[in-house]
Amino acid sequence: MVKIAILGGSGYTAAELIKILLRHPHVEIVAVTSRQEDTPLVSDLHPSLAQRINLRCEPFDVDRLVARGVQCVFSCLPHGASMQTLPALLHRGVRVIDLSGDYRLRDPNAYAEWYGECHNDLVNLAQAVYGLPEIYGDDIPSAQLVANPGCYPQTAILGLAPLAASKQIDLHSIIIDSKSGVSGAGRTPKLTTHFPECNESVAAYNVGQHRHTPEIEQVLEDVAGEPVQVLFIPHLIPMDRGIFTTIYATPRRPMAAEELTEIYRDYYGRAPFVRCVSRLPATKDTIGTNFLDLTLRVVRGRIVVLVCEDNLIRGASGVAVQNFNRMYGFDERTALL
Amino acid sequence: MVKIAILGGSGYTAAELIKILLRHPHVEIVAVTSRQEDTPLVSDLHPSLAQRINLRCEPFDVDRLVARGVQCVFSCLPHGASMQTLPALLHRGVRVIDLSGDYRLRDPNAYAEWYGECHNDLVNLAQAVYGLPEIYGDDIPSAQLVANPGCYPQTAILGLAPLAASKQIDLHSIIIDSKSGVSGAGRTPKLTTHFPECNESVAAYNVGQHRHTPEIEQVLEDVAGEPVQVLFIPHLIPMDRGIFTTIYATPRRPMAAEELTEIYRDYYGRAPFVRCVSRLPATKDTIGTNFLDLTLRVVRGRIVVLVCEDNLIRGASGVAVQNFNRMYGFDERTALL
Amino acid sequence: MVKIAILGGSGYTAAELIKILLRHPHVEIVAVTSRQEDTPLVSDLHPSLAQRINLRCEPFDVDRLVARGVQCVFSCLPHGASMQTLPALLHRGVRVIDLSGDYRLRDPNAYAEWYGECHNDLVNLAQAVYGLPEIYGDDIPSAQLVANPGCYPQTAILGLAPLAASKQIDLHSIIIDSKSGVSGAGRTPKLTTHFPECNESVAAYNVGQHRHTPEIEQVLEDVAGEPVQVLFIPHLIPMDRGIFTTIYATPRRPMAAEELTEIYRDYYGRAPFVRCVSRLPATKDTIGTNFLDLTLRVVRGRIVVLVCEDNLIRGASGVAVQNFNRMYGFDERTALL
Amino acid sequence: MVKIAILGGSGYTAAELIKILLRHPHVEIVAVTSRQEDTPLVSDLHPSLAQRINLRCEPFDVDRLVARGVQCVFSCLPHGASMQTLPALLHRGVRVIDLSGDYRLRDPNAYAEWYGECHNDLVNLAQAVYGLPEIYGDDIPSAQLVANPGCYPQTAILGLAPLAASKQIDLHSIIIDSKSGVSGAGRTPKLTTHFPECNESVAAYNVGQHRHTPEIEQVLEDVAGEPVQVLFIPHLIPMDRGIFTTIYATPRRPMAAEELTEIYRDYYGRAPFVRCVSRLPATKDTIGTNFLDLTLRVVRGRIVVLVCEDNLIRGASGVAVQNFNRMYGFDERTALL
Repeated sequence: MVKIAILGGSGYTAAELIKILLRHPHVEIVAVTSRQEDTPLVSDLHPSLAQRINLRCEPFDVDRLVARGVQCVFSCLPHGASMQTLPALLHRGVRVIDLSGDYRLRDPNAYAEWYGECHNDLVNLAQAVYGLPEIYGDDIPSAQLVANPGCYPQTAILGLAPLAASKQIDLHSIIIDSKSGVSGAGRTPKLTTHFPECNESVAAYNVGQHRHTPEIEQVLEDVAGEPVQVLFIPHLIPMDRGIFTTIYATPRRPMAAEELTEIYRDYYGRAPFVRCVSRLPATKDTIGTNFLDLTLRVVRGRIVVLVCEDNLIRGASGVAVQNFNRMYGFDERTALL
Repeated sequence: MVKIAILGGSGYTAAELIKILLRHPHVEIVAVTSRQEDTPLVSDLHPSLAQRINLRCEPFDVDRLVARGVQCVFSCLPHGASMQTLPALLHRGVRVIDLSGDYRLRDPNAYAEWYGECHNDLVNLAQAVYGLPEIYGDDIPSAQLVANPGCYPQTAILGLAPLAASKQIDLHSIIIDSKSGVSGAGRTPKLTTHFPECNESVAAYNVGQHRHTPEIEQVLEDVAGEPVQVLFIPHLIPMDRGIFTTIYATPRRPMAAEELTEIYRDYYGRAPFVRCVSRLPATKDTIGTNFLDLTLRVVRGRIVVLVCEDNLIRGASGVAVQNFNRMYGFDERTALL
Repeated sequence: MVKIAILGGSGYTAAELIKILLRHPHVEIVAVTSRQEDTPLVSDLHPSLAQRINLRCEPFDVDRLVARGVQCVFSCLPHGASMQTLPALLHRGVRVIDLSGDYRLRDPNAYAEWYGECHNDLVNLAQAVYGLPEIYGDDIPSAQLVANPGCYPQTAILGLAPLAASKQIDLHSIIIDSKSGVSGAGRTPKLTTHFPECNESVAAYNVGQHRHTPEIEQVLEDVAGEPVQVLFIPHLIPMDRGIFTTIYATPRRPMAAEELTEIYRDYYGRAPFVRCVSRLPATKDTIGTNFLDLTLRVVRGRIVVLVCEDNLIRGASGVAVQNFNRMYGFDERTALL
Repeated sequence: MVKIAILGGSGYTAAELIKILLRHPHVEIVAVTSRQEDTPLVSDLHPSLAQRINLRCEPFDVDRLVARGVQCVFSCLPHGASMQTLPALLHRGVRVIDLSGDYRLRDPNAYAEWYGECHNDLVNLAQAVYGLPEIYGDDIPSAQLVANPGCYPQTAILGLAPLAASKQIDLHSIIIDSKSGVSGAGRTPKLTTHFPECNESVAAYNVGQHRHTPEIEQVLEDVAGEPVQVLFIPHLIPMDRGIFTTIYATPRRPMAAEELTEIYRDYYGRAPFVRCVSRLPATKDTIGTNFLDLTLRVVRGRIVVLVCEDNLIRGASGVAVQNFNRMYGFDERTALL
């Protein structure tokens, strides 16, 4: 039994994590922390968990967590708060899976540019492993700190990695047009996520400024071994969950969809959660699962990759457990099917 | 041309009012006020109005409004704020259509009980006319202050008035089960109206405590000439607009649906915005219109009245213009078809 | 390992069943039948099951199923088809959980009246057990044929059973106002379930004629030991899943909500899937689970019970597995948490 | 008063047309035809029109229409049916606005290629005017046959026309990623538009095969005076109405968003229904209106144009009335504000 704690328990990713971990045969949830002033029952914050979990949210306290034998922490804190909070845990030898953006960008200057503040934990940043199992799977078992990947980047990176690896496409004209459900914006009420504002509407947001842009480029550069530039535009869709990403790429030589599909099936042959399908995928096919579905088309000489996932599971809490399974030597699929 | 102003311009009812009034051949919108600190363009608050209206929101200032010749004000202020603000206008002879609940309950004690604060404008309360044209139509032309009715009450009252008037039902066992779209909750973001919370979900709210309860009873008592008690439960439905109200009543003697329909068609014979239909109505049939659709059924000896409307138009801004038309002697339907 | 087959594999309840049963440690899915002319992969009918199940849909063939050792069948066939198909299986000793309405009404005359055709399998009808574990739990272990309950009836019955059992309410004036997501209407496209028709709309349907009415009454009569009459009105809500049922009942003597809550908590003390909560429940809290949440209020002297569930899981496939677990002596919760 | 008829009255575009034309001071709706076997009231097909229009649907009969003085016909027939039906009307001198795709592609070979059947009315095809007022406005007043433009093409064409006209972009690498509400798929129930299938989901469809592709290219070629190639991918979004189109184009020289905005404001200076806005637009801002909103951004050196409209109004019935107004010399905005 691995004793774990969840930090930042009031949001959507924490609720999904708890649901998944309650099914995990080798996990015991020891604590859930929250910055709420009182210490509500976890099931009061998330009524869907009534009679499933009997913990109260508690304030974050390293000593208390360590004293109770917590070996691994899933941090659902927002960026900024993560890098303030996690060093103390790491210092005490606790392993951490951080779902925020704080440890994803290797270059602290990029962090400062895109997140608008300086990184204040360079030591741990240097040792963090980007937790995308299909790309960095071999580095995860020994990692103490896993930077769980962003929801959009997973669709973009896994949708492009086989082509980037084989250098079959122009790496400077990639276009990534993503459509996301509203839960991706978190649980804090805002006008843009107020039901009568975003229901029955589509809009782009953070055009040219979304923080997932450098994350996508960093990983694709690792895969390709050369500079990559992407144009990434996210859109808000009136649905709870799901990301659909449409990727446009220019091949370096004419290619057929069949050839592309073969490249992808080879690349993802041992990845249990990437499904290369031939039909046109829909986000609904992946909701409630850790699967990422993708298909390939060639239209007027250009490559179109269509990718979808559940942003809260594959895009956050599911892949976090996939990383956890790798960190502790469990079957990667445990609790995820 | 009647010069009008709209108070509280940032919400949904104000936006709908402006759209309707821009089509009104005898209205000039002179001012839109708002408590916003800056003075944004109305079309910045409501992008759908871009290039339709060229006014800036301004702070409320009685003298300025009067100086510019404002004859009639539509108040979209929240309750409490309305009774603070409107006396000064009424004192200067301006006519007012108030969309809040402040002047709806004749009895200030009922106001105190249901709204949780004392009424502080008893003088104007005493002269206010409840603006439901199908019931109090004759009082509206001469009214200086019209208390525009609540969205739910209109469905409940118009769904029951013919039966209450003819005393065909037991007036103490009426059940009103209402289902409303989320715009009825206003434009201020809250957790309960945050998209991922209320989308794909149904819940009851304010059970036994909704302020529209005494409003429904007051008007039905006027119609019936005797005490009325209703059990009213509102529910939140994942859609922008629309109220569907299912009313259950016990007839004093066995009645057939046909007989009921005849009673209703007689009662609403000259009401241009009440449609007594024979099919089962859907809120969608009324969206974007000032119509209230209803039908009657008898099931196992009890009467079921099914009523629907657009909560923002018939339920608020449309009926406000209908009242305005009666106040100024225009055809009741002007700008509403 | 219990070898099972699923009949009628193309609909929503079959897909949910498969998802649940894939998690069941004591079940092997041997066959999925369908009346589709070709024999598509199950995962082609339900793309969400890609890489989860490797069976093809096959035509129904008793001999083949028996030859392969099928011990238990879940029938997702529509009513009418179930009673044509299941006798052959029952005759061969196979146990059956029928999700249709064919074996729910004990009285064949009631079947003829509400379903519009004569029942043609009276022998098996006589031995069928109504599969609501919280009411008939003791009869299920020995049943060969379980009539899985309807989605609406579960909310109505479990919402009323403690009061009916203790005869605390008038059993002839019960009103059941239900609100259901669209998946309850099945997977066959119709104008009423065409997206632009039912989205952003609420409507009542089958007013006074819904087949779940006699089912509710039959079970409540069993519980109360005397005649029961309900007025049941279902409504269609623009969401995928979920039923919210608002029940109105008249107590025989004044009761407080606390007293009611105690009665309910006693009654459901050992029922792992009924949650008596104090907050106002929302369908979203139960989606994806086998829980039925309910709460009690007293408003103006009458009892209001608010109940919700996931219509496809608790309302159909989840409770089917709960029944299966009882039939085979597994922990009732197996595969359902 | 211009006497008009509407052909194909059972769909969504016909309902919208009727609503708009009922507000038009110079139009009399004389007939609505439908291929329905009986002759239902128009308001039975479209309950929202109850008490608004008193016509019955009638079978199509040229003589009857001409005898009643019909001067202009709006055809909401599907493609294929339009070119079978309209020649007889045109032959009798009736003016026609055709909302189908039959007369949009100038080249009958392109029609055969994309629509899968031969064009059978080459005479009228040769004289048809493509009814996009912002581009072909001068040709519309004298047209007998106006081919009303497709919903998607309007967003793509108006989003690119100023750049195509000034040849500021590479005309062979244009990417058009469109997101549409479900009403765009028409009113015939299909599995893909069945509520529980498309709600809470996003998917691409007709990838590389959508018939609006050649329509977009034809008009942009007219504007640019040289060949144009676009890659167009439509997506289905869980909402009733609205199209959001994200256009990616490569400028021939570095350009700033401000410069682009100026080009667009110049180009659309006299177009009352194109709003070049600076904020990021949302489809909701245009719903229920004939406005097309667009904005411009430059991201990483490439031009991003964001465009939205109501697919049923601006995308179909609204622009049809705009064309009608031009054909008959009325103010272009009549009945559209």
